[in-house]
Amino acid sequence: MEAKNVPHVRELLEGSPKNWGKWGKDDEVGSLNYLTSAEVLRGIATVKQGKTFTLQVRMGDPGGDPVWPGRQSAKRMNVMDRGHYLCGKGPRFPGQYEYADDVMFMYLQGSTQYDALGHVWYDDQIWNGYDADTTIGGLAKASVLPIGERGVVGRGILIDMARHRGKEVLGPGETFTHVNLLEAAAKQGVVIEKRDILIVRTGWIGSFYKREHAEFYKDFKEPGLTYSPELVQWFQDMEIPNLVTDTMANEVTVDPVSGVELPLHNALMRNLGVALTEIAQLDPLAEDCAKDGQWTFLYAAAPLKIVGGSGAPVNPIVIK
Amino acid sequence: MEAKNVPHVRELLEGSPKNWGKWGKDDEVGSLNYLTSAEVLRGIATVKQGKTFTLQVRMGDPGGDPVWPGRQSAKRMNVMDRGHYLCGKGPRFPGQYEYADDVMFMYLQGSTQYDALGHVWYDDQIWNGYDADTTIGGLAKASVLPIGERGVVGRGILIDMARHRGKEVLGPGETFTHVNLLEAAAKQGVVIEKRDILIVRTGWIGSFYKREHAEFYKDFKEPGLTYSPELVQWFQDMEIPNLVTDTMANEVTVDPVSGVELPLHNALMRNLGVALTEIAQLDPLAEDCAKDGQWTFLYAAAPLKIVGGSGAPVNPIVIK
Amino acid sequence: MEAKNVPHVRELLEGSPKNWGKWGKDDEVGSLNYLTSAEVLRGIATVKQGKTFTLQVRMGDPGGDPVWPGRQSAKRMNVMDRGHYLCGKGPRFPGQYEYADDVMFMYLQGSTQYDALGHVWYDDQIWNGYDADTTIGGLAKASVLPIGERGVVGRGILIDMARHRGKEVLGPGETFTHVNLLEAAAKQGVVIEKRDILIVRTGWIGSFYKREHAEFYKDFKEPGLTYSPELVQWFQDMEIPNLVTDTMANEVTVDPVSGVELPLHNALMRNLGVALTEIAQLDPLAEDCAKDGQWTFLYAAAPLKIVGGSGAPVNPIVIK
Amino acid sequence: MEAKNVPHVRELLEGSPKNWGKWGKDDEVGSLNYLTSAEVLRGIATVKQGKTFTLQVRMGDPGGDPVWPGRQSAKRMNVMDRGHYLCGKGPRFPGQYEYADDVMFMYLQGSTQYDALGHVWYDDQIWNGYDADTTIGGLAKASVLPIGERGVVGRGILIDMARHRGKEVLGPGETFTHVNLLEAAAKQGVVIEKRDILIVRTGWIGSFYKREHAEFYKDFKEPGLTYSPELVQWFQDMEIPNLVTDTMANEVTVDPVSGVELPLHNALMRNLGVALTEIAQLDPLAEDCAKDGQWTFLYAAAPLKIVGGSGAPVNPIVIK
Repeated sequence: MEAKNVPHVRELLEGSPKNWGKWGKDDEVGSLNYLTSAEVLRGIATVKQGKTFTLQVRMGDPGGDPVWPGRQSAKRMNVMDRGHYLCGKGPRFPGQYEYADDVMFMYLQGSTQYDALGHVWYDDQIWNGYDADTTIGGLAKASVLPIGERGVVGRGILIDMARHRGKEVLGPGETFTHVNLLEAAAKQGVVIEKRDILIVRTGWIGSFYKREHAEFYKDFKEPGLTYSPELVQWFQDMEIPNLVTDTMANEVTVDPVSGVELPLHNALMRNLGVALTEIAQLDPLAEDCAKDGQWTFLYAAAPLKIVGGSGAPVNPIVIK
Repeated sequence: MEAKNVPHVRELLEGSPKNWGKWGKDDEVGSLNYLTSAEVLRGIATVKQGKTFTLQVRMGDPGGDPVWPGRQSAKRMNVMDRGHYLCGKGPRFPGQYEYADDVMFMYLQGSTQYDALGHVWYDDQIWNGYDADTTIGGLAKASVLPIGERGVVGRGILIDMARHRGKEVLGPGETFTHVNLLEAAAKQGVVIEKRDILIVRTGWIGSFYKREHAEFYKDFKEPGLTYSPELVQWFQDMEIPNLVTDTMANEVTVDPVSGVELPLHNALMRNLGVALTEIAQLDPLAEDCAKDGQWTFLYAAAPLKIVGGSGAPVNPIVIK
Repeated sequence: MEAKNVPHVRELLEGSPKNWGKWGKDDEVGSLNYLTSAEVLRGIATVKQGKTFTLQVRMGDPGGDPVWPGRQSAKRMNVMDRGHYLCGKGPRFPGQYEYADDVMFMYLQGSTQYDALGHVWYDDQIWNGYDADTTIGGLAKASVLPIGERGVVGRGILIDMARHRGKEVLGPGETFTHVNLLEAAAKQGVVIEKRDILIVRTGWIGSFYKREHAEFYKDFKEPGLTYSPELVQWFQDMEIPNLVTDTMANEVTVDPVSGVELPLHNALMRNLGVALTEIAQLDPLAEDCAKDGQWTFLYAAAPLKIVGGSGAPVNPIVIK
Repeated sequence: MEAKNVPHVRELLEGSPKNWGKWGKDDEVGSLNYLTSAEVLRGIATVKQGKTFTLQVRMGDPGGDPVWPGRQSAKRMNVMDRGHYLCGKGPRFPGQYEYADDVMFMYLQGSTQYDALGHVWYDDQIWNGYDADTTIGGLAKASVLPIGERGVVGRGILIDMARHRGKEVLGPGETFTHVNLLEAAAKQGVVIEKRDILIVRTGWIGSFYKREHAEFYKDFKEPGLTYSPELVQWFQDMEIPNLVTDTMANEVTVDPVSGVELPLHNALMRNLGVALTEIAQLDPLAEDCAKDGQWTFLYAAAPLKIVGGSGAPVNPIVIK
């Protein structure tokens, strides 16, 4: 795939639509601007049953978390617990209560997470045209902080591609397009509406917990959406504010046509300002939707407000 | 306050109500069990305008985060950014995109956060009677994980004690009771209902950002709710699932009557199973509620699903 | 190896010699007490050429460090560098100088390192009979701190077992005994003297850098010294203060006779107080000794003085 | 001191000597090259008594370590100890031994430490003329790694400026020059020789442990050597390979004449290649030297071999 004839992502995306400036030159949240009060109320209107789901994967699992190769699982460590009191090391306060306390070392993109819009780029410019130099030492522009400040609330819709294809999990490198999403939606009996928060299940992250990790990572190639000008235009026309998937990168690892790696990060996030949410745990939600037939719901998520973060962990909530 | 006659918290809370076993011997989320589907729908019913607010404080602020003395501010560090590409150190992928990546070292209770029910205890037992030894090396029982798995969704109500007392911020060690909460609610024209998620503003955390940090921490004593048997009974009768405040400890630092430190952590959290959410940023929400007169709303929050965590950061969402 | 008939290490070491109390009930450095001023001068007397070697492996290598399975390589991260100045984020001081700064997250036993004498134990007692409860939350007794305070200086002797057996590196699980050490010494033309700091090369750590890491860790079993009562008695009679090897555990991973894992950690370190130094890089030193025929030298090492540490990284120095 | 008329360090050091290229264009250890085998043997020749000292300060002290304002103390955390076994969480191995294990998060310049030669610079060039861009994301040139690989062994000489001035500790901002060093040496009855490793005591770091930390850091200004062209020329003529002090920055914080901050870092380290060792604990050594009158000794130190490090902790050894 690193063959000489793989084009620069700039060439691949020549003429691809851009929303830079659409929400002002100081914008840092992009397509999340589509989520107006009206959209919040549209999300609220879907709630019928009072059921709730949370979409984060477990974090700091001693058995390892699913992380992009090269990153490490979060490591949590106690700095105070009952053991300290057993051996006389626990601090004593008036009233003699005891407590546990802990710290964590983590990759900010090492769990279910929102990408900052400035997380990925080309041609020295990130979302909205900010200079890529602003990423140095921490994102001064288009970090995850403004996304955390704003929050993401609207109507969510789940498209279960794995179920649509009759599989427990899509295969490594297996692709699908917006047309496939529409087919799956039709089969589910739902319509993807403008400004829906689009949640797509492949079964991929769930499979991490069902097999040997070494096997999961071997010849690592995720399934997912694949680039085409039509797909990008569809996202633009549909004004999709946020794409959520149960994969680490929201798209197939390498575009099988051009050989470019992760082109949708640039086409959708850098250029259109679509928020990307990765590594979501969608299996229980999908199971329930298949059972009750309700594939739309209120989606409410707010990543941690990490100053300068290229991303931040999040535990999204779905209310049906 | 460490005078000889400060009673053990066990003595102070003798006869105080307990919900251990109420939701089964395996329960790890306590009073959050009150938040049934009906409560979720009651929360949904409050939404009128489609306005949203997020309640986390900024995290990893180079200027320092508000943390309990002895803990440290989160420290975020880039491991990849445009600088690496400028000097030829950035990795090259097919298509030549570039990216930023970062890691963080943090106290799990070093930002807006949910306490695990097992975070604080006395008499060798945590919430629901689990052995305090289960906290060693990570909470095997009543960690923050089950709270993250469940999520917290219901009707939230904001009581602005600072506004009620005509102050920008309550003073160090200033106390108030459930009776004061009821008075403030009456003045706001709202009624605290059974199973409301109770959100109380003191102005304390907001003041961190408005003055010298050294001054903020000097003779550290937070304002807050103060212990009485009546107050505990009121929480029990009202079936309050979750108490959220803009202080670090949800209660006055030291009970001025008994001299016991943080007795409500044990009376409410250990014994009743009330979830505690600390260090919330409530100023913008309070400002808005004062303006539009809507003090109740949908509250949706889910802390990170950290395995064994004594707590976890959270960015709660309010929808009005 | 986890067969039912593997004895408890307590049974295996029944009657094995112990130096508890030999240097007083408050001792925390054990056999390092053998290194008196006379031994320091005996080490000095070996120096002929003014050649120096350092024995630590590289640390924080982006390609990974050799660590015991389950631990992680040290992770180093810049928090300031020229990039910050390029984009206007570097702080300015009078005179306008610039600087780089960095932090690291590491396992204390994740590089060339001294074990604290309290690092491993059985029967609820660590070195010198201290209660194993003192290890909780940090070693209050027999931590690496007193070793760091004291330092380790004496006559070192290198025994090159790999060379002795005509191999580049010993095989996985390959064992040798003190008798083999004596044979190798004889072939090298040197005599292991009482109180020598014993440095043994297997070629193992060097091999980490010469092959795929996955292959290095596969069916992980290190070569090394293997337990026998005679070997323990030999260490005792020879008053060996410190054993240094180019393996992660100073001994064969599992005793092939009893099936007990790492029995010498207990026989030598817990019971005799012998200091263990692991993951040393011995290849360049061995090469040089083979060339000039000088296998003895001044050895000077002092691990970091980490309060409560179960071990600490060290960069030992050899002077010939 | 940030007055407009503070010159750029480039102007202050105009015409100041440079050793760039002196040891080849690929050199990364600078004046440590002066430490030839002959110098090692000169150091060995000073050893008379077999006494040893270690010069690092304690690290990870729960009470806080002495660190430059803005950095944090090292934080050590257990990940395994006897507590885990008490509650059934400790892993079991054949033979049933138990163990303790820990991790640490630290500033690489947050304890006794060697600066990498590339740690500080001006005019876009670090030691030996390497481009300052090479510092981005980790020092690709003149990092602490080559210093760790080489080690530092030679004759050390202690000059006790505090004792010379009849003080327990020099005052904040108190300065001294090479002439004062010579005076102190004369009073001590020793001669600073060419290529001596120069160790200077001010009492400053020792005072950290004797007073309130808040007081120590208040209006932070260290005592130390102060810039003059003559002093720089003296270091150059004396071919001093390494300057070691018990302060955080090896020099007075601000040059009282020019107002430039830390000019010697550039004059001595960036330009001459002198290795700087900071935050050494010199009090016990000084006490002993005053007692036995032996102020010269073998100095042996090797910082951790941290790949790309701007510095690394070290526990230097002195042998008299």
